[in-house]
Amino acid sequence: MSGPTTVTAAVLVIGDEILSGRTKDSNIGYIAEYLARIGVDVREARVVPDVEEEIVAALDALRGRYDYVITTGGIGPTHDDITADAVARAFGVPIGEDPRIIAMMLERYQPVDLTPARRRMARVPQGAELIDNPISKAPGFRIGNVFVLAGVPSVMQAMLDFAVRSMKTGAVMQIETVDASPVPEGRYGDALAAIAAARPKISIGSYPSFKDGRFMNQIVVRGKDSAAVAEARATVEAMLATMRSEGKPL
Amino acid sequence: MSGPTTVTAAVLVIGDEILSGRTKDSNIGYIAEYLARIGVDVREARVVPDVEEEIVAALDALRGRYDYVITTGGIGPTHDDITADAVARAFGVPIGEDPRIIAMMLERYQPVDLTPARRRMARVPQGAELIDNPISKAPGFRIGNVFVLAGVPSVMQAMLDFAVRSMKTGAVMQIETVDASPVPEGRYGDALAAIAAARPKISIGSYPSFKDGRFMNQIVVRGKDSAAVAEARATVEAMLATMRSEGKPL
Repeated sequence: MSGPTTVTAAVLVIGDEILSGRTKDSNIGYIAEYLARIGVDVREARVVPDVEEEIVAALDALRGRYDYVITTGGIGPTHDDITADAVARAFGVPIGEDPRIIAMMLERYQPVDLTPARRRMARVPQGAELIDNPISKAPGFRIGNVFVLAGVPSVMQAMLDFAVRSMKTGAVMQIETVDASPVPEGRYGDALAAIAAARPKISIGSYPSFKDGRFMNQIVVRGKDSAAVAEARATVEAMLATMRSEGKPL
Repeated sequence: MSGPTTVTAAVLVIGDEILSGRTKDSNIGYIAEYLARIGVDVREARVVPDVEEEIVAALDALRGRYDYVITTGGIGPTHDDITADAVARAFGVPIGEDPRIIAMMLERYQPVDLTPARRRMARVPQGAELIDNPISKAPGFRIGNVFVLAGVPSVMQAMLDFAVRSMKTGAVMQIETVDASPVPEGRYGDALAAIAAARPKISIGSYPSFKDGRFMNQIVVRGKDSAAVAEARATVEAMLATMRSEGKPL
């Protein structure tokens, strides 16, 4: 009997503006949550600058290791938009203007306004499939297992809706969250470790957050088998109930 | 004549909860902006799961390449907190309970409440210097060029204030932002590319955002020489002024 299928992905965020702190990335979290819901597990994310060698090196490290790589950023009309060139180089294919994209642009621009800069957005690696951009027209693309999306969140999100249609998906991770309050992590850590060690197919995490001067802890139980997740959750809840009922200081 | 000194860093975010999308990372952006202000350039960021081999591999890739690596996450008392072990393994040093941390904990807990889970937080690689945690006591640490901080943002931020005291810093990147509206990227892209190409020591980026159904563009000029940044900014502004004054459609 084979276990649940697993499909993996990595996110590659491209852009100096993220590494300078000027723009705060929200694409990693959005993509991670979106793909988790459809049964694709994001296993790694990287942020690299607008430097071709860096983009190529990251693409090569990630695309051989995961089922899919989703890139965001660097596909606009300006000189710092070099993602398409880097992807072509990583795949060792030529890059050139795609006549389908030029035709799309001519629906929007007069020929005289189709500047060389705008034509940059028509450059895609040979053999790429286009990814619709319902917001600002210039498409993303897919080549092999790499999906190249825009960096602007609303445009990236619209492209992702389209991109996922061609992805295979695996079993969806079942996630159960248990509020551990008021039991502190240091009190339940040992018992939780034993619960986790006895359930190798279940992933159990403990996540503190700090609000209004105190820690709140949540225990998250994750796995692809619903029954096993439910059993682990019940065991965690029973552990917490015992600790809450004990009279000694927490 | 030597140019401005450059000090580089990478951020390594550790945690399944970021890759599942459950928790949205804000540490990369915070650290990037903070370090930029003091003259440390963040050149790369990675997010890896709570898997020792992955953490070690990322540490080894980053610590040899950049002046500093800042890690966040995985230093709490539960079984999924394995950052300290991974760092010790990456550096090839033993790990054990630090008596300084045990002493700190005994100021807060009765000996009977110093559970094995809590004692986990006292485990640091041999030779590490401690990084104060004014919020929840359990310290971060530094070993070699790696700074190991908490994942909870408020705790990470307090630790970072302390950590940066021992960092060397370089020339601060000067950043000037020019609002390009209403000139679209596709209109100024070619002229901007020429301005950028003529100024190899200046980095010029163009960043669209999408709001209320339309794109807003900002052009960002970055460099370590104030006069060169000011000259580039003036050139960009003159270019935009010319385009705004032209009667033809944008």
